[in-house]
Amino acid sequence: MDESIGLDPLKYFFEPKQVALVGATEKLGFGYGQTRTLIERESGRRLFLINPSKATVFGRRTYARISDLPGRADLAVLIVSSPKVPAILREWAAKGGKTAIIQSAGFAEIGARGRSLQEEISTIAQETGLRIIGPNCVGLVNTANGFSTTETTPEAMTPGPIGVIAQSGVFGNILMDWGPEQGVYFSKVVTLGNRCDVDESELIRYLGRDAQTRVIALYLEGVKDGRRFMAAVREVAPDKPIIILKSGRSSAGRAATVSHTGTLSGNDEIYSGVFSQVGVLRADNIQELFDLAKALTIRPLPKGKRIAILTTSGSLGAMTADVCADHGLALAELSAETIQAVRADAPPWMNVKNPLDIGPSGLFGRTLDRLMQDPRVDAVIAIFVIPWMIVQSVEAQGLTPQQFLGDLAGSPKYWGNKPLLVSIIGKQALKTMALSITQGKVPVISTPENAVRALAAMIEYQMRTSG
Amino acid sequence: MDESIGLDPLKYFFEPKQVALVGATEKLGFGYGQTRTLIERESGRRLFLINPSKATVFGRRTYARISDLPGRADLAVLIVSSPKVPAILREWAAKGGKTAIIQSAGFAEIGARGRSLQEEISTIAQETGLRIIGPNCVGLVNTANGFSTTETTPEAMTPGPIGVIAQSGVFGNILMDWGPEQGVYFSKVVTLGNRCDVDESELIRYLGRDAQTRVIALYLEGVKDGRRFMAAVREVAPDKPIIILKSGRSSAGRAATVSHTGTLSGNDEIYSGVFSQVGVLRADNIQELFDLAKALTIRPLPKGKRIAILTTSGSLGAMTADVCADHGLALAELSAETIQAVRADAPPWMNVKNPLDIGPSGLFGRTLDRLMQDPRVDAVIAIFVIPWMIVQSVEAQGLTPQQFLGDLAGSPKYWGNKPLLVSIIGKQALKTMALSITQGKVPVISTPENAVRALAAMIEYQMRTSG
Repeated sequence: MDESIGLDPLKYFFEPKQVALVGATEKLGFGYGQTRTLIERESGRRLFLINPSKATVFGRRTYARISDLPGRADLAVLIVSSPKVPAILREWAAKGGKTAIIQSAGFAEIGARGRSLQEEISTIAQETGLRIIGPNCVGLVNTANGFSTTETTPEAMTPGPIGVIAQSGVFGNILMDWGPEQGVYFSKVVTLGNRCDVDESELIRYLGRDAQTRVIALYLEGVKDGRRFMAAVREVAPDKPIIILKSGRSSAGRAATVSHTGTLSGNDEIYSGVFSQVGVLRADNIQELFDLAKALTIRPLPKGKRIAILTTSGSLGAMTADVCADHGLALAELSAETIQAVRADAPPWMNVKNPLDIGPSGLFGRTLDRLMQDPRVDAVIAIFVIPWMIVQSVEAQGLTPQQFLGDLAGSPKYWGNKPLLVSIIGKQALKTMALSITQGKVPVISTPENAVRALAAMIEYQMRTSG
Repeated sequence: MDESIGLDPLKYFFEPKQVALVGATEKLGFGYGQTRTLIERESGRRLFLINPSKATVFGRRTYARISDLPGRADLAVLIVSSPKVPAILREWAAKGGKTAIIQSAGFAEIGARGRSLQEEISTIAQETGLRIIGPNCVGLVNTANGFSTTETTPEAMTPGPIGVIAQSGVFGNILMDWGPEQGVYFSKVVTLGNRCDVDESELIRYLGRDAQTRVIALYLEGVKDGRRFMAAVREVAPDKPIIILKSGRSSAGRAATVSHTGTLSGNDEIYSGVFSQVGVLRADNIQELFDLAKALTIRPLPKGKRIAILTTSGSLGAMTADVCADHGLALAELSAETIQAVRADAPPWMNVKNPLDIGPSGLFGRTLDRLMQDPRVDAVIAIFVIPWMIVQSVEAQGLTPQQFLGDLAGSPKYWGNKPLLVSIIGKQALKTMALSITQGKVPVISTPENAVRALAAMIEYQMRTSG
């Protein structure tokens, strides 16, 4: 594949003007959700349904075969059984189709028979120039134009800064289900499946150019082509942080990836070396992938490693200090001015130190402000842990969360020069409240430990890109 | 303290017949919540409110001082400022009071002045035999009789099998707020604060004898008396698993614990050695504390290390296999009978291996059944990851979650001989659904990684107690 001309055709995947759905069905089961979604989200596009044995699907006319279509089409979405796929692709290429997403399973992941079928479709792609995503995937989502080839919740279609490339289809669905509850919103989500043609390297470059994407999050079982991958990452990572979650670290995990997407996931130590060499940040699990992605969308990055911890629980303050030490971050020594100013407000039982435990003083907003303005502090982690009964009684007094906890969405304008990460422990309702106050301007991280990890990742990224 | 008579007096903390609240107040702020809670939860107890300057609080008569009380009382709860505490304790001891909980802060955690105040109250405890919890704590909760000295949500008062000893008050509140959403329910929760008298060792023995408590979860910044602690754990751990979350691992964290509860948290390596020597299981964070506690309430424990993983996402199956390898657990080789039976039901694209990825086949319940009955499997991790749109469409068809996912609460009766852990990734609504199906009979663990950690802890506990 020639990289110089490899980028533009991918646009037809994300911004097709005409879409043909091959295998459209209103029968419950595989294909039902895709059909319904493409119909519901047709707006501004033209959708053709193809089904040789039913004249209508969901009350809309169908075409028996691709050759019957009235005009050209950019993208075909295939949800037919795997043995039918090669012939349909040839028809599609003959019709002038530019791209195809194969959602059907039954290829390299099921052994020899499937492998030969997959080789056949790879050959078709090479011979005809048709670009293919899949097979064995759920396609993609583009929140900017509301286009989706997979069923999602409405919240998952809210535009955001995080671009996702996931090798597995279900995995993409999980991220889209879980993300919005955590304040994670997507620009584009692509699932790769068995990668008979389009791979992560091409998509990294594509998302690198995508105006909506500020951070790229990857889930991979293995890299398809190591040299292409390294070249793509080297090109894109200086502008946009790339975070990877990779399975197949152990031999048992590697065996599992072969039967999942037919991937040889390779030696993990080699991967670790390569990732760190080209500046890819690594996450250990989905929660960490989300937390790092959220943190890395914000700017500025920390200018140093001196962290201040603001907490309403001394225990969590102490545990967070432990995790800072694990990650080589230092606790900031607060300036004399900050200490004096905080002491002036503080009740007598309050210890003015870092971590700064304000207990039930209610001084959250004001103290946060002082820490953010301390020149000896490079970044602040604010741990919101407020017993729910107290939250309720504060609300019963008519105070808004902003009055109680500080105007987290408004303040950063004048704080300006350093990052703030907020972390919540407790009820989902408290997390939802924090998300409503921060309005995506301050990342709300799942746990104080992950806030430290996210800061460590921000510092690592900062050092690489500024050095 | 004589251990042989040290146990019974603690009953007056958890099951007092008369309670005196010293410093009762209806003014918003510290003390308001405690006053309201003790009044609302008075049922079956007698509550005396003490306030020298107000004749009534929340419409109830008060007493000006302890000596005015009409009869004896088991427990005093003190929410007055720290300098007033010693005199009140002497009065209380003179009146025949048996126990006191000091919720006020302003003792050893604030430096020299507070330390001398705390020494004074320790001396009072020793001289008078009065038993004291605190200062600088929020007291305790006993779900069995609905008694609480701190405000909690109603859900936190639902009786359960997990007994908690938390050094920090806010920490106890956080656990109670967050637990029920995760399927964690408590027998008793005690917060220790600065431990001027009653310590974790005594309470471990007390919970060891408590019929409602099946697992003991501890949060400590440091152990008060190492020899007492080791003796208590050695006595109790063979019957009830003890899990500890300890802060102050790093020097920064240790410094933080001094200003929090005046604790010298000591060298972490020494703690690790002692914990492992006496059979204490260690958690790294609150989520893990919850997950281990949930898992360790169930029986039987695994008889070996051969794990089967059932998943609807091949990616999560592979990642979970990786974490099994990290923790020294083996992937079970499924028996020929199991493989044959699963294959007979399976669609052609399904790979019958371990991890067993059933994809969108809908065969969750039936396949789980086969794995649970395979003699080559010692424990099963079932990863529920179902795109939310599919859950909704299944519900729209009128299927119950049990029909779709299997009768997880009913089935264990005939599975009987091995543990099952369920793990969810996705929306809180999906977790809530899983909790409603499992009804506390199967632990729902926050992530597949933590399910593996929990199984490793179960195996560690099993090996210790059977060896």
